[in-house]
Amino acid sequence: MFFHKQELQFKSTPDKPDAVYARKLQEVLGGQYGEITVAMQYSFQAWNSHIPGKYRDLLFGIGSEEFGHVEMLATMIAQLLEKAPLGITDDAVQSDPAIAAVVGGTDMQQAIVAGAGARPVDSMGNPWSGSYITASGNLLADFTANANAEMQGRLQVARLYHMTDDHGIRDMLSFLLARDTMHQNQWIAAARELQEEGSENLPVPSNFPLKKEHRDVSYQYWNLSDGKAAAEGSWASGPAPDGKGEFTYHDGPTTSAPMPPPTHPDSRFYGTTELPNTMEKMAGSMQDKLNKE
Amino acid sequence: MFFHKQELQFKSTPDKPDAVYARKLQEVLGGQYGEITVAMQYSFQAWNSHIPGKYRDLLFGIGSEEFGHVEMLATMIAQLLEKAPLGITDDAVQSDPAIAAVVGGTDMQQAIVAGAGARPVDSMGNPWSGSYITASGNLLADFTANANAEMQGRLQVARLYHMTDDHGIRDMLSFLLARDTMHQNQWIAAARELQEEGSENLPVPSNFPLKKEHRDVSYQYWNLSDGKAAAEGSWASGPAPDGKGEFTYHDGPTTSAPMPPPTHPDSRFYGTTELPNTMEKMAGSMQDKLNKE
Amino acid sequence: MFFHKQELQFKSTPDKPDAVYARKLQEVLGGQYGEITVAMQYSFQAWNSHIPGKYRDLLFGIGSEEFGHVEMLATMIAQLLEKAPLGITDDAVQSDPAIAAVVGGTDMQQAIVAGAGARPVDSMGNPWSGSYITASGNLLADFTANANAEMQGRLQVARLYHMTDDHGIRDMLSFLLARDTMHQNQWIAAARELQEEGSENLPVPSNFPLKKEHRDVSYQYWNLSDGKAAAEGSWASGPAPDGKGEFTYHDGPTTSAPMPPPTHPDSRFYGTTELPNTMEKMAGSMQDKLNKE
Amino acid sequence: MFFHKQELQFKSTPDKPDAVYARKLQEVLGGQYGEITVAMQYSFQAWNSHIPGKYRDLLFGIGSEEFGHVEMLATMIAQLLEKAPLGITDDAVQSDPAIAAVVGGTDMQQAIVAGAGARPVDSMGNPWSGSYITASGNLLADFTANANAEMQGRLQVARLYHMTDDHGIRDMLSFLLARDTMHQNQWIAAARELQEEGSENLPVPSNFPLKKEHRDVSYQYWNLSDGKAAAEGSWASGPAPDGKGEFTYHDGPTTSAPMPPPTHPDSRFYGTTELPNTMEKMAGSMQDKLNKE
Amino acid sequence: MFFHKQELQFKSTPDKPDAVYARKLQEVLGGQYGEITVAMQYSFQAWNSHIPGKYRDLLFGIGSEEFGHVEMLATMIAQLLEKAPLGITDDAVQSDPAIAAVVGGTDMQQAIVAGAGARPVDSMGNPWSGSYITASGNLLADFTANANAEMQGRLQVARLYHMTDDHGIRDMLSFLLARDTMHQNQWIAAARELQEEGSENLPVPSNFPLKKEHRDVSYQYWNLSDGKAAAEGSWASGPAPDGKGEFTYHDGPTTSAPMPPPTHPDSRFYGTTELPNTMEKMAGSMQDKLNKE
Amino acid sequence: MFFHKQELQFKSTPDKPDAVYARKLQEVLGGQYGEITVAMQYSFQAWNSHIPGKYRDLLFGIGSEEFGHVEMLATMIAQLLEKAPLGITDDAVQSDPAIAAVVGGTDMQQAIVAGAGARPVDSMGNPWSGSYITASGNLLADFTANANAEMQGRLQVARLYHMTDDHGIRDMLSFLLARDTMHQNQWIAAARELQEEGSENLPVPSNFPLKKEHRDVSYQYWNLSDGKAAAEGSWASGPAPDGKGEFTYHDGPTTSAPMPPPTHPDSRFYGTTELPNTMEKMAGSMQDKLNKE
Repeated sequence: MFFHKQELQFKSTPDKPDAVYARKLQEVLGGQYGEITVAMQYSFQAWNSHIPGKYRDLLFGIGSEEFGHVEMLATMIAQLLEKAPLGITDDAVQSDPAIAAVVGGTDMQQAIVAGAGARPVDSMGNPWSGSYITASGNLLADFTANANAEMQGRLQVARLYHMTDDHGIRDMLSFLLARDTMHQNQWIAAARELQEEGSENLPVPSNFPLKKEHRDVSYQYWNLSDGKAAAEGSWASGPAPDGKGEFTYHDGPTTSAPMPPPTHPDSRFYGTTELPNTMEKMAGSMQDKLNKE
Repeated sequence: MFFHKQELQFKSTPDKPDAVYARKLQEVLGGQYGEITVAMQYSFQAWNSHIPGKYRDLLFGIGSEEFGHVEMLATMIAQLLEKAPLGITDDAVQSDPAIAAVVGGTDMQQAIVAGAGARPVDSMGNPWSGSYITASGNLLADFTANANAEMQGRLQVARLYHMTDDHGIRDMLSFLLARDTMHQNQWIAAARELQEEGSENLPVPSNFPLKKEHRDVSYQYWNLSDGKAAAEGSWASGPAPDGKGEFTYHDGPTTSAPMPPPTHPDSRFYGTTELPNTMEKMAGSMQDKLNKE
Repeated sequence: MFFHKQELQFKSTPDKPDAVYARKLQEVLGGQYGEITVAMQYSFQAWNSHIPGKYRDLLFGIGSEEFGHVEMLATMIAQLLEKAPLGITDDAVQSDPAIAAVVGGTDMQQAIVAGAGARPVDSMGNPWSGSYITASGNLLADFTANANAEMQGRLQVARLYHMTDDHGIRDMLSFLLARDTMHQNQWIAAARELQEEGSENLPVPSNFPLKKEHRDVSYQYWNLSDGKAAAEGSWASGPAPDGKGEFTYHDGPTTSAPMPPPTHPDSRFYGTTELPNTMEKMAGSMQDKLNKE
Repeated sequence: MFFHKQELQFKSTPDKPDAVYARKLQEVLGGQYGEITVAMQYSFQAWNSHIPGKYRDLLFGIGSEEFGHVEMLATMIAQLLEKAPLGITDDAVQSDPAIAAVVGGTDMQQAIVAGAGARPVDSMGNPWSGSYITASGNLLADFTANANAEMQGRLQVARLYHMTDDHGIRDMLSFLLARDTMHQNQWIAAARELQEEGSENLPVPSNFPLKKEHRDVSYQYWNLSDGKAAAEGSWASGPAPDGKGEFTYHDGPTTSAPMPPPTHPDSRFYGTTELPNTMEKMAGSMQDKLNKE
Repeated sequence: MFFHKQELQFKSTPDKPDAVYARKLQEVLGGQYGEITVAMQYSFQAWNSHIPGKYRDLLFGIGSEEFGHVEMLATMIAQLLEKAPLGITDDAVQSDPAIAAVVGGTDMQQAIVAGAGARPVDSMGNPWSGSYITASGNLLADFTANANAEMQGRLQVARLYHMTDDHGIRDMLSFLLARDTMHQNQWIAAARELQEEGSENLPVPSNFPLKKEHRDVSYQYWNLSDGKAAAEGSWASGPAPDGKGEFTYHDGPTTSAPMPPPTHPDSRFYGTTELPNTMEKMAGSMQDKLNKE
Repeated sequence: MFFHKQELQFKSTPDKPDAVYARKLQEVLGGQYGEITVAMQYSFQAWNSHIPGKYRDLLFGIGSEEFGHVEMLATMIAQLLEKAPLGITDDAVQSDPAIAAVVGGTDMQQAIVAGAGARPVDSMGNPWSGSYITASGNLLADFTANANAEMQGRLQVARLYHMTDDHGIRDMLSFLLARDTMHQNQWIAAARELQEEGSENLPVPSNFPLKKEHRDVSYQYWNLSDGKAAAEGSWASGPAPDGKGEFTYHDGPTTSAPMPPPTHPDSRFYGTTELPNTMEKMAGSMQDKLNKE
């Protein structure tokens, strides 16, 4: 269960209102790689985990921290909106193009729907979706998903850092950047630990019987575009990271098969299934059958 | 530009119809980590890439291969549906619980909408969404996303392998498992190469000025759940993977700040902003203002 | 069945074009609490209702009225867009920041997709979704949903009222505000009538056997945050509104249970299910089993 | 900020596996009125609230409790799936219609994607959406939304109670039903308290200047369907709940206006804007204009 | 505005309950080409139309009819669910695989959420979406969209006809099939009339100045797959339907251009923009710049 | 399978950066009728087709071409964003309303998420959805869908043409307009050919037994709005396009049926099913039943 404390992990107060920036911050609150995503992702991974101990404790611990980041961003957004001209009628607003420009760039639902508050959406207004999260039950796959989420998240925060010169916002972003550094390192460390312990290995899932896959194509690089430089990469020759094979390079596929003939489902699906001259022959019997039914 | 060849990369013909399995296969065709996702993800990464050469060629090459996997799965699904009882009225269907069970477990839109064909949806019928893909312009972040996508994808194919004993399906899955092994290895190799070359490093993005983040919390593990085992992990002590800091373990946060006071936006947002007794005092002037407008 | 009359319930003609406002109006046409929502919500409640008479007639009657509001808003939006500079090339547009600002704040699909027309979307461009409506078959629950929808709707219209000084728009909004006043009152009256008649009561559903719920926690306020003021509310002591219990206040939960041990599903799901040393022991037999299959 | 404790608020252990029921429980975990919705709704209302004290403390306290309910349901679902036949190949599965039926009724992504785990989706597989929540900044509107959410939620749990006879599941549902009773009562109590204090009143928003709405239609019931029984309701005569008017009943609308003429936007939108004979006349000049551009 | 009459356009009463079929019918109520789609599509086309008279009257008239079809389907669905075993605990349900099969194939939200009622979703549970409709303001394009919608709709109803032998359902479907025949013919007739009158012509939009398109490729068939039979079609030689050109056949594209070099956006986007050796050279100055900011 | 060539079908290089236009172009890349839609639509139609030969080859050939158009637009968008002020802090940006206006009108995710790259979304930021495509297995229905898609697409490109005066963009749009002319003509030609060959006819599906539809209403125009001009159209009298009937005009419906009585599902759904006085009588027995369970 969860307990809430009416404090923030770090100060979150802007110097001044900025409604356009309030919209931009929605990306890291409610976007694909925003804080709601990581909070929910780590929590579902914990609930779906199959072993007690350090990995599950890690997931619960960081999941909770991320819910606190959601809160910090929501709090910041409300403050950025507090005194901003959100389109409320006012002579100055209507005639001043600078203010009009600001109004045009805002999240209109922050004003109309939330009354100058944060919303569970991204910077283009798409609502947060459960489809953003990953929790497969396989920890090596999921820790890789988590490392990616923290990389994409830190990248977005770094970009946002340069889109304002408000000291209060930058200070909060500096904190989030540092925590993203921690979490990015942490998931990479955890993924390594899983492999060093032998709990999971490459390729994921590592205990699927290799003899059941078509091993002849397991380490072949197939070049299906006409750029030749891919042959220079470490994925085109030399040992593969899973330690079980050697990469080889091929121009195009090494296997192929004729396309099977088109399907002919039941005529009561009314697909276009027959060539015209065949149809004439068949027409009587099919219509008979359909009429009888 | 793209060219199509009317061949498959590998044979895709089932032993017998199986409408329930046709639905399950939709997951790896049109799900979050299905083949449409990787085909579109690698293509967008190529279009958004900023350097010519081996990495972009790799993205174009594998993107094209994945569109071919979409095709193999769509072809297989159509065949699994070709002769299956999809709910078409027939005395046997109505009275045989085994057939009724099959009908209940099918993707009803494969029958009603596609006339016994594949659809761009997952196994629960959710349409494929552009929000599934990741293409940030930062190659280390994106190759990590790609490694994750291939891990999740191979995991799902491995699970599906055990949900049928049809030799034709298993043969195709064996091929896909092998290609997922290749692609999983390949993105890990490419991520390593980026780092070895110094093009990108940890933490992503590596050229954000570290002095601008709050370095004091960049390597602290904060335990915000009450499990103690997380302290045992390699993320709680010792050097961090980015080589720039040492992990430390903390029970709970090491920084905190009071929540800022609630916001008071313009009264014309009609939020609940005042305590009742204050309201009485303010009522006259606010109503005056509102009435005048 | 429905019949249409080519008249509006009230005049809907703006003084002048305003493409940014045309976008804002989309919120109350096609947003979560827009007119499409209430029209569809009341109609589905009528179709799913289980008793003939006054409640169903009410639902049919107001459902029809709301479809007329959709029409009034769509008509108004088209007029606001009729003469507005929607980004069409024109020297003035390109060089005048005031016009550029307007262009930036518009719904680009109103121009590109609808050719200067209304769309079934909200003010951020999200398409209207069937998931916005509520129709449970329980009238007390649904009339409460309806009261909420009319409250949120009137709140949004009131906010929009202050975002323009166009007399034509304000006149139409004054009409919608009045009808929202009516409908808000009406659903509250209907909810009361249901209870006074004894058709439904609190807690909803009122005929679920109370002895089947854990009555010991049915009136306990559990404070799971650290603010203490919640103890002052009428929800923390005194009789509950359902007349069946007395509220009590508790710091934190009064019941708890240990988390059950993590699950160990079939190994063919390839979750991370075993600690490493256990794995070594098990590895042989599992691989044997998997290989044999 | 949030802290997690590795305990549940109540025991959540089923008697036996039941994969079909595991899917049904997803509705109250990740559906429109599931526990994710109320947890996020109360949290966003707290973050967007404008006054400190009892109301905000209430929102924080109950928001936290609801996150704990998400956890209880996720835990229960994982247990229901732990030993269930989820379609894994097995002779018995393929030939036994009872097991086949179970397989057909499961959430296929719980197996293929989550490896026998819970997912952030509803019982039909739709991912949870940020569009489910309501947080307007107006407490009377929002507490009404909350009362509705608890009513709909308790109704769904009551229905689910009758869809199983597993004692473990029923025990957990009995607990949730009791907490829903509490929360339903609590939001109704809070809505009353707001009104008694004078913080907010009907109609919401109560401080919008009434003289700015078209008061002549504020209490008129318009019957736009042909059922006559709606005239019998308390919404068709007598005093309105807001205490500011008297209901009256009308067959059809009391106001109407001619539809404004269709719009004629810029010809470069290529809408069908002219009657043919007019077009002939205009054709030359328009084509001239278009060609010149 | 709209008026409702408590009658149906045709009788809609099934012989017996059938919960699985109730789910299938959702496709033509709330699916991509269901009745909600056409009702909303024709209504938005009417509201966005630019000329008064026969075309707009047609759109309003048929739009209203389609709302009545929504009602007929919703009514039918509620009846199919009325007595069906929807998973309510009952010894017979649990042990009879035939009943279990039925339960597995139902729309679980029709039971849990709507209490045995219709919902605004398709047969896989996806909520109806505003993105399903088309209303561009160009009548020839939109009437073609309408003809397609009626074709897809009639095709789905025809498929559904064969999935039941209930006389009541089939009778209603026979009515809908007939109305779809009418509407399909009607939109084709209206599209022809537009062209005969000269209001619109091919290619849509017909008054875009042809000299502004690259006319050299306006009638070239480019074969980008390796099947040769496309050359036999009427689209590969002979006059084009718009009467303005002659089709020609080409193996592959007749125009091409080198891909432009990759973009190098601002370094503060932290994309991977430089080759390693270049990076070394640039590193100092960029870091200086970033640090200074 | 697919092969990629690192060339474009036509040059795609803008004169100058334009971030607002980069957002507008997203509509024809990732919108309902954008290039992703047609590429996927034609491909799924090919995979679901039931006859080999010219129609399937056509679908494969054009599907491939459209993937190349996706690429051209993605490439163009990246170039438009390359040097544009995307909100990066800079004194000029903050104080110049013209630049601020541009920032407000951009797709914020192109900057924050993609690092100045294209995204699989429309101009309002909605992610591309699998629900946009149509592939029914019936070629006449699907070719009509394709004709519509090309009409809507060309219409949108024509509108976009007038929203810029950049020669590079206009040049690319001129190419796309020409290809849309080709594809629009081609699908119309293919639909005609299907009918001339007798493979498919009107009404779609043409081999559904006509005697099974209610032929008495198959050619009746029902006017359910009060505009009278619809009687003047070719859909209200004269022969229908399918050659099988004569249109007739009717004011309102020619058939009707009383609404069936409301349903009374199982009381354990807790719908509001009884009138109060009936309830009193029933209360004892129902409560008994519920308590016993």
